[in-house]
Amino acid sequence: MELMVYLAGEIHNDWRSEVIEKAEHRALPLTFVSPQTNHDRSDAIGEVILGEQPNPIYRDDTASSINNLRTEVWMNKADIVIAFFGEQYKQWNTAMDAGAAISKNKPTILIRPQSLHHPLKELSNKATVTVETIDQAIEILAYMYE
Amino acid sequence: MELMVYLAGEIHNDWRSEVIEKAEHRALPLTFVSPQTNHDRSDAIGEVILGEQPNPIYRDDTASSINNLRTEVWMNKADIVIAFFGEQYKQWNTAMDAGAAISKNKPTILIRPQSLHHPLKELSNKATVTVETIDQAIEILAYMYE
Amino acid sequence: MELMVYLAGEIHNDWRSEVIEKAEHRALPLTFVSPQTNHDRSDAIGEVILGEQPNPIYRDDTASSINNLRTEVWMNKADIVIAFFGEQYKQWNTAMDAGAAISKNKPTILIRPQSLHHPLKELSNKATVTVETIDQAIEILAYMYE
Amino acid sequence: MELMVYLAGEIHNDWRSEVIEKAEHRALPLTFVSPQTNHDRSDAIGEVILGEQPNPIYRDDTASSINNLRTEVWMNKADIVIAFFGEQYKQWNTAMDAGAAISKNKPTILIRPQSLHHPLKELSNKATVTVETIDQAIEILAYMYE
Amino acid sequence: MELMVYLAGEIHNDWRSEVIEKAEHRALPLTFVSPQTNHDRSDAIGEVILGEQPNPIYRDDTASSINNLRTEVWMNKADIVIAFFGEQYKQWNTAMDAGAAISKNKPTILIRPQSLHHPLKELSNKATVTVETIDQAIEILAYMYE
Amino acid sequence: MELMVYLAGEIHNDWRSEVIEKAEHRALPLTFVSPQTNHDRSDAIGEVILGEQPNPIYRDDTASSINNLRTEVWMNKADIVIAFFGEQYKQWNTAMDAGAAISKNKPTILIRPQSLHHPLKELSNKATVTVETIDQAIEILAYMYE
Amino acid sequence: MELMVYLAGEIHNDWRSEVIEKAEHRALPLTFVSPQTNHDRSDAIGEVILGEQPNPIYRDDTASSINNLRTEVWMNKADIVIAFFGEQYKQWNTAMDAGAAISKNKPTILIRPQSLHHPLKELSNKATVTVETIDQAIEILAYMYE
Amino acid sequence: MELMVYLAGEIHNDWRSEVIEKAEHRALPLTFVSPQTNHDRSDAIGEVILGEQPNPIYRDDTASSINNLRTEVWMNKADIVIAFFGEQYKQWNTAMDAGAAISKNKPTILIRPQSLHHPLKELSNKATVTVETIDQAIEILAYMYE
Repeated sequence: MELMVYLAGEIHNDWRSEVIEKAEHRALPLTFVSPQTNHDRSDAIGEVILGEQPNPIYRDDTASSINNLRTEVWMNKADIVIAFFGEQYKQWNTAMDAGAAISKNKPTILIRPQSLHHPLKELSNKATVTVETIDQAIEILAYMYE
Repeated sequence: MELMVYLAGEIHNDWRSEVIEKAEHRALPLTFVSPQTNHDRSDAIGEVILGEQPNPIYRDDTASSINNLRTEVWMNKADIVIAFFGEQYKQWNTAMDAGAAISKNKPTILIRPQSLHHPLKELSNKATVTVETIDQAIEILAYMYE
Repeated sequence: MELMVYLAGEIHNDWRSEVIEKAEHRALPLTFVSPQTNHDRSDAIGEVILGEQPNPIYRDDTASSINNLRTEVWMNKADIVIAFFGEQYKQWNTAMDAGAAISKNKPTILIRPQSLHHPLKELSNKATVTVETIDQAIEILAYMYE
Repeated sequence: MELMVYLAGEIHNDWRSEVIEKAEHRALPLTFVSPQTNHDRSDAIGEVILGEQPNPIYRDDTASSINNLRTEVWMNKADIVIAFFGEQYKQWNTAMDAGAAISKNKPTILIRPQSLHHPLKELSNKATVTVETIDQAIEILAYMYE
Repeated sequence: MELMVYLAGEIHNDWRSEVIEKAEHRALPLTFVSPQTNHDRSDAIGEVILGEQPNPIYRDDTASSINNLRTEVWMNKADIVIAFFGEQYKQWNTAMDAGAAISKNKPTILIRPQSLHHPLKELSNKATVTVETIDQAIEILAYMYE
Repeated sequence: MELMVYLAGEIHNDWRSEVIEKAEHRALPLTFVSPQTNHDRSDAIGEVILGEQPNPIYRDDTASSINNLRTEVWMNKADIVIAFFGEQYKQWNTAMDAGAAISKNKPTILIRPQSLHHPLKELSNKATVTVETIDQAIEILAYMYE
Repeated sequence: MELMVYLAGEIHNDWRSEVIEKAEHRALPLTFVSPQTNHDRSDAIGEVILGEQPNPIYRDDTASSINNLRTEVWMNKADIVIAFFGEQYKQWNTAMDAGAAISKNKPTILIRPQSLHHPLKELSNKATVTVETIDQAIEILAYMYE
Repeated sequence: MELMVYLAGEIHNDWRSEVIEKAEHRALPLTFVSPQTNHDRSDAIGEVILGEQPNPIYRDDTASSINNLRTEVWMNKADIVIAFFGEQYKQWNTAMDAGAAISKNKPTILIRPQSLHHPLKELSNKATVTVETIDQAIEILAYMYE
């Protein structure tokens, strides 16, 4: 009864490693998938594969097409989606991914600091569960197997 | 061949009035629906209807449940979704609504200033069309009827 | 922008009349649909149409098949579902209808007295909004048109 | 040709153990999944993970959000849903789960004592099969492999 | 609250006229749609439009493609499907249409004489309601508006 | 790249054994699932599990509910559906199953003798492929792996 | 019982006018929708609305995003799709639109000259009906109302 | 985390071998599925299995029904679809397959030479990513596993 978990959210810190290590520590039978977490690689991938683009907008657009393909493939296979918001970045793509996951009936856990409760109130209300820390999310994943 | 258009996005300025007036000026057979655009009313609606809540998080959660109901009802009926991003606010609910609309196969127009192209690159790539101004969006709505 | 509202829930009191009158009083452009609210008629409809059945279980089954057809037809057309629970009856069919409505992505308002919060906690968490009184539900319906 | 079976229903007695033991006794290639069956744990899980809540309604709401996540994840993966009703409890969440399962086209077996035929008549009519005992449900699971 | 009803079933007798007249007599706000009921026209329509075909199988195939288009268009728009089986013909297309309607979650009424209960037992069990006469089906349609 | 094939159709002869043996003979990596093929067992299963019913119609209805559960579970898992029609029986349930399979976008192979082309013309036109013999169906299954 | 028909296909000749005139001549209650049929306008619309693009590929991409929005909006509302292929142009977008329409269960009529039967054989086999002339398509539309 | 990739597109050259070899060379955990790539076999399969047909159109139609079955079965199982267009052939079935894949929310990579950008502009805009060479597509597949 292995489950696949997609880790949506910012790629500027190492929150995913923390999730994965803590899940491994508790021997939870989970497979984690995620977007490209090397930020420079993620931003550059369009031009790396498709060649130089005429301006920054098209540079971004080609990178996004490849990153969106990656997100869609893995999210389609996921049983659970975790969306993580930190205080520093806008992360509109995380909100978009969470909105998409909820519309596809993927059970979704939102992790956000209490300080973000107001701007994330609609997403929090739509997510299946909202927590404030990675440890709380891990507790929920462990609870699946009790 | 009337179409219904849902106007997702920030409620801190009057961009919706501009869209509606310009559409009326061109006599486009469109009906517009939107979230509650009175910001204070939108934030207060939970406590207004359900009574005082024990803390700001639950105040926000009850307001969001009612605002989400409104969004879902009108978005379900919409033929086109327009998502507007301005430079000042986080507007994660707009990104969530756009993600949901795209997942429900609602044709979606993204309006965002060029300055936001980088943080909105994934959403721009997924939207059906991205423009920078309300006038451009109006041109597209008019193009539907040529 | 007329909306159709399905009124699921017990048929032992006249809560539906109260909803409809209050909506009319506020001139909300709503059409209400509901199950058969004449309790005896609802229980008897199977034998009235299909003739005497061999025992009470089959009497109930034939009545239910006709009542379920009615519910499905009207719920398919509804934009909003209201599910009402009173303190006296089990009303498992209301919970079933609410579960079905939520699975079909119909925005759903749950009305239940505070005394029922514990047994209805899972349904309350899944419904789009939970309120305690008919007046609160009417406020939400009116809010759709602000 | 292993099948996964979700066991919805009351968690106040040990009917699930009986189902699982009898299936194992007959060596049926089935995997069973279920909600949290430790009642106290199920009611407390919200506060255990998310901390003390301001009142009993929010205590229940946080617990339900986590229990609903668990139900959705496992029910999404199930090939068959069994919904069990006993005589003592209201179990509206079981009726909601059954309504959701049927709407998602999950073949559903309803187990209920004959004494409950009247209040469960609509659900019985919608379920794929209705039986009165666990032994009858086991016979049906075994019949899948004849 | 007008409803559209698709009348699937044999085209060798005039049961549809009976349904329509009785519904009109009771002033039910129903619109009826159906397959081509002129049997010769239905069988010939492929060659009438597409020209002579090389053999009877291809004659039938071209006719069926046009009749299937008609059925799909009208059934997609129908709120209720009535499937009628008489004693004389095989009418596999009626059973196919009923199977398709049920899979598309169209509430379905099966009309069949008691003598056919055994060969139609699986379809009867899947249909929303099974009746034996047109009058019973009319009573159900009238019951929608009580 | 194993595929699962559901074998819908009459249970009065041993056509399924022929399919399975010929597939094994060619070492095709296929798993076959089917309805209960012991005719007496299939007709009796309702009363065997649920006890004596008040009349033949309800005897058939209880048997059908269990057989329909079996069909739905296996057909949901199938990659391909084969529907077989012989000359002797009405087999409306086969036509219903084929209609359901096609509506669920299951690629469907129809096997029917040429003598049945006229009454099965609509189903033949909707099926993905129509053949006349089991050997032809086996050729198509083998073709999947070329 | 008005129906909406989407006319997919080449915009280099005036086949749509012929369809519309012939439907009007027979007083069929049809509403026709289509892509932009002014070829220059269709190719230029991206730069007209969004400004000059850095190269022909991006010029085409912006035009396509707007034309795809138009196609999706109208096709979503259509009851029937007609896809027309002439001998001169590649019209891959027509084949893409037809593939999308069929996947969305829109009944689809393919019009193509006999000379194109080989390259269009897969699409012809998937379309609901294939014809060779506009007159034949009109006959089918008229047949809907017999 | 193995993924299945469907390779849609022309069967006149050996582009699929190149994809498969390059993926194997990089040890990507991918399984590739495709249509019949032996062109003569593909065109003849209808008559090989079903016997001589009365004319070339029906010869093509029977072959297409079998090739479409194959495409549907494998595409249903695919996680990613790659659609390849070369300069020489019309390949309308590839455009149809791509349109169907996109409508089924299968992430889709379009490979086309730059010379085809204009006729493929709508499909390119709808595909998740567009590239010009097989090597670029391989880079994207490899990127899934970084």
